[in-house]
Amino acid sequence: MRIGFIGLGNMGAAMAANLLKAGYEVTAYNRSPEKVAALVAQGARPAASVADACQGDVVITMLANDIAVEAVTFGEGGILATLPTGAIHVSSSTVSTALAERLNQAHTEAGQGFVAAPVFGRPEAAAAAKLFVVAAGTPSTLEAVTPIFDAIGQRTFVLGEEPPAANLVKISGNFLIASVIESLGEAMALVSKAGVDKQQYLELLTSTLFDAPVYRTYGGLLAREQFSPAGFAATLGLKDVKLALSAGDELQVPLPVASLLRDRFLTLLATGGSDLDWSAVGALSAWEAGSKHPA
Amino acid sequence: MRIGFIGLGNMGAAMAANLLKAGYEVTAYNRSPEKVAALVAQGARPAASVADACQGDVVITMLANDIAVEAVTFGEGGILATLPTGAIHVSSSTVSTALAERLNQAHTEAGQGFVAAPVFGRPEAAAAAKLFVVAAGTPSTLEAVTPIFDAIGQRTFVLGEEPPAANLVKISGNFLIASVIESLGEAMALVSKAGVDKQQYLELLTSTLFDAPVYRTYGGLLAREQFSPAGFAATLGLKDVKLALSAGDELQVPLPVASLLRDRFLTLLATGGSDLDWSAVGALSAWEAGSKHPA
Amino acid sequence: MRIGFIGLGNMGAAMAANLLKAGYEVTAYNRSPEKVAALVAQGARPAASVADACQGDVVITMLANDIAVEAVTFGEGGILATLPTGAIHVSSSTVSTALAERLNQAHTEAGQGFVAAPVFGRPEAAAAAKLFVVAAGTPSTLEAVTPIFDAIGQRTFVLGEEPPAANLVKISGNFLIASVIESLGEAMALVSKAGVDKQQYLELLTSTLFDAPVYRTYGGLLAREQFSPAGFAATLGLKDVKLALSAGDELQVPLPVASLLRDRFLTLLATGGSDLDWSAVGALSAWEAGSKHPA
Amino acid sequence: MRIGFIGLGNMGAAMAANLLKAGYEVTAYNRSPEKVAALVAQGARPAASVADACQGDVVITMLANDIAVEAVTFGEGGILATLPTGAIHVSSSTVSTALAERLNQAHTEAGQGFVAAPVFGRPEAAAAAKLFVVAAGTPSTLEAVTPIFDAIGQRTFVLGEEPPAANLVKISGNFLIASVIESLGEAMALVSKAGVDKQQYLELLTSTLFDAPVYRTYGGLLAREQFSPAGFAATLGLKDVKLALSAGDELQVPLPVASLLRDRFLTLLATGGSDLDWSAVGALSAWEAGSKHPA
Repeated sequence: MRIGFIGLGNMGAAMAANLLKAGYEVTAYNRSPEKVAALVAQGARPAASVADACQGDVVITMLANDIAVEAVTFGEGGILATLPTGAIHVSSSTVSTALAERLNQAHTEAGQGFVAAPVFGRPEAAAAAKLFVVAAGTPSTLEAVTPIFDAIGQRTFVLGEEPPAANLVKISGNFLIASVIESLGEAMALVSKAGVDKQQYLELLTSTLFDAPVYRTYGGLLAREQFSPAGFAATLGLKDVKLALSAGDELQVPLPVASLLRDRFLTLLATGGSDLDWSAVGALSAWEAGSKHPA
Repeated sequence: MRIGFIGLGNMGAAMAANLLKAGYEVTAYNRSPEKVAALVAQGARPAASVADACQGDVVITMLANDIAVEAVTFGEGGILATLPTGAIHVSSSTVSTALAERLNQAHTEAGQGFVAAPVFGRPEAAAAAKLFVVAAGTPSTLEAVTPIFDAIGQRTFVLGEEPPAANLVKISGNFLIASVIESLGEAMALVSKAGVDKQQYLELLTSTLFDAPVYRTYGGLLAREQFSPAGFAATLGLKDVKLALSAGDELQVPLPVASLLRDRFLTLLATGGSDLDWSAVGALSAWEAGSKHPA
Repeated sequence: MRIGFIGLGNMGAAMAANLLKAGYEVTAYNRSPEKVAALVAQGARPAASVADACQGDVVITMLANDIAVEAVTFGEGGILATLPTGAIHVSSSTVSTALAERLNQAHTEAGQGFVAAPVFGRPEAAAAAKLFVVAAGTPSTLEAVTPIFDAIGQRTFVLGEEPPAANLVKISGNFLIASVIESLGEAMALVSKAGVDKQQYLELLTSTLFDAPVYRTYGGLLAREQFSPAGFAATLGLKDVKLALSAGDELQVPLPVASLLRDRFLTLLATGGSDLDWSAVGALSAWEAGSKHPA
Repeated sequence: MRIGFIGLGNMGAAMAANLLKAGYEVTAYNRSPEKVAALVAQGARPAASVADACQGDVVITMLANDIAVEAVTFGEGGILATLPTGAIHVSSSTVSTALAERLNQAHTEAGQGFVAAPVFGRPEAAAAAKLFVVAAGTPSTLEAVTPIFDAIGQRTFVLGEEPPAANLVKISGNFLIASVIESLGEAMALVSKAGVDKQQYLELLTSTLFDAPVYRTYGGLLAREQFSPAGFAATLGLKDVKLALSAGDELQVPLPVASLLRDRFLTLLATGGSDLDWSAVGALSAWEAGSKHPA
């Protein structure tokens, strides 16, 4: 199976590398071409254009936001115009449910397949092929791309035939992670101002009811105040919280914790933290309580 | 070692029963005496008064709130007045840090020992002797009561010599549980309004980054909308969130998620949900989004 | 001066009528033509199309939202394509700052004038020519349209040459009104649950520090629980709060009260209140405190 | 009529001075006696103790918080023990509804009269005898003290026979002022970051829908960033917001804006602003948006 891969950021580069390791023929494209070289060294064929990456059976997009996915899909010489009939567009980017719906309709009308397959996991998990894939699409398209998911992740969850559902679950999952960051940040600001050691506190939490990767990962970053370099940038965190709020708008579901997070991310960005990891929003409680700012 | 046990609610009765199983001589007291009978059937000696439960080496209190602990400790014929010199008061109730400080000073001045030892775990965990104990006190008093903790819990975390620290950690832990209930409630309201099955969603979460008891337990209650009978009543949830806010007041730490939770619990109580499990606050998002009220 | 008027809702119809009274020649257009008849009876010329309303010196748009203004401006046969060189588009709709910027650039490039002139006031004030106009544009265009503002309003505030500033001030003003509705709703829920009469309470407030139209108008609606018919619909209230949040996004300004209001409006809409006046969000506090829902 | 006056802070000193001007015989007491001298210079008799101030027909208390009022009332040689039968305690402090209830019961049982009479107005208004008095008590006690209210205020609102209602209205009024400070602070942070002049913005607001003293006073302080010296200290602002939240607890009324304000005040205090005027909480939005901190 020949796979085009568009978007070689921290996540995409690691995913594409695992596809190469699994024996796939990968044609790699990135807007800034210097990122392509590293992948070519691992055996990928470089693509000179989006169209060039759309000559195979599947094209995977792993891009920063709605605008980027819209540009490579609907733009001139884009995926919609150049992907062969019957080939499949796998969208792994975290995009809005509205865009997932629009992509699905456009590809279906064009006789192409479409699968929404956002992933959970930070760059380390992507490198280790330990991502969790949340996929939705028609059974036949899903069947065709399942081996790809096996090559990049540790488990795939199938959410039915409607692609937007996969994106909604991904968006809600990122919202839940952000809510852990916020609430853990508040709790740590509280106990540490009373003199409790943050690392010991975290060990207690993760040894008991909060024994989950999300608490270990983000609790560790918060306890060590290690917000740079960013595994997942604050700007992307804000983007995802806003996707959750947009979904809440469409579905008429109020989301007060997401609203709080939106304000937190704006505060972080406005006060010099836009290059930090998104976990830095969890340090704003301590800042408001008189400690130094994370940036 | 002879132990007095004061407070035989869901949690206390189970803890006292495990002390009996471990071979301790337990004298049990409860304000409403009918709860004492069940424990007497398991081998406990009934206490006719608080003072009667204070004749041994240790007295454990497991009561609903500050007022109840103040009453049995500082009231006439209370623990402070009747506990022998050198005996130890183990306070396992979830009380304010201010009360923990006051208890510690009073007992120390009276030549008695004091240990704050709140526990994490719902009644099922108490029954199975699987509680987590968070303890703080002087090394010698802690050493004396550690076997007791081994009999009721699966692990004890020692937080130093200052009792209020243990209560603060307990309070912050309950705040973190409540924040999981709220954020999970929001996420479930969102995805379920789009047609995603709540059980499947929860399975996805707890198979990935959210693989922790707190998500399985409370996510399960939320997915099944099973809020009655209450394992931990909404009124107690409000009490604990208010303890977190009070600690935030004293330490000057703003806690926006705790503030949100306070309003949520008040809403639940004001709209007929005071007898429900505290996890029902997680159903208020769906109520606001147009679903039925949990009560 | 010949004026085209596009958008004959509650507000627009009253404004156009006042222009007729002031002696202007008005050509009126509305998407649903039945609203044109009433104005024709007052002396207006009916326009068969947007282009037909763009034959004069000025065209005023008073429409529901960004999408409507974009459609009549940028659509085929729209204002941009049909307004004569040198004629002026006065945009009185409450739209985003981003759209105001885009309109200004497009009209300037096309050799047309553009003035942002949103207004404060409910339909009664529009009918009485008592609106407040907040205007921004180049001095020469502003000078040309000032007599129009005098015919529809009691006072015009000029905010400089950048049209988006006028829209931002309008958006922030509506946010402030909504924040009065919310906080007054909370205060009334509190005192009325204790038995204080809401009308007497309001009289006390408006006789003292809160002696302002916004408290009298919205406080009166809240005290009388008079949310229907809507002077300004809840859906428009949500739109405006979202415009404030979008402006906050662009400018990186967190707005926690606006975030709360967004959730309140979503709740109102999701629970059957979309046809109510936006002041009904102020009744949600009492609903959460156990009173009946405003819908 | 002989009046004892206890509590000579900014507000109390001005009120007592106006009673002297109106011809009353005033015996003045303050915990730190140096404040008594200024009033003696205006004709007051100095009181050596609380009891000494309780020899007349009426004693007025104007103190900082519940604790202070409890101390002078219930303490040894306090008002309850020393006020003659039939004399009246007028409580003008902003205290909790719970304390107002307790004071009323105690004085009634002791054969003394009790009136809750909190006031609205900053020190300038107190000096000018322009306060608004909110009074509740039995008709006969109210009748007896009404001339006193006329001497210190411009208008008295009678709220019925239950003293706590007056305190609740006062508490809710201060909450409403604080909510104006917060929302105006958010709006000003937004428009000023876009380049709109804050003074011009305020003039626009107060010339239109927001033409009220509360917007002029607090808007002016915010526009000028004039937070020192404090007319009403941030610590008192926090106290009053917490009184509102406590009243909400008792009545089971969620108050999300009050919850936000509580976190804002804690932030202000924790970051060095405890000596500032409470209006400084309105500057925290701009701080979070990247401007300097108000302290």
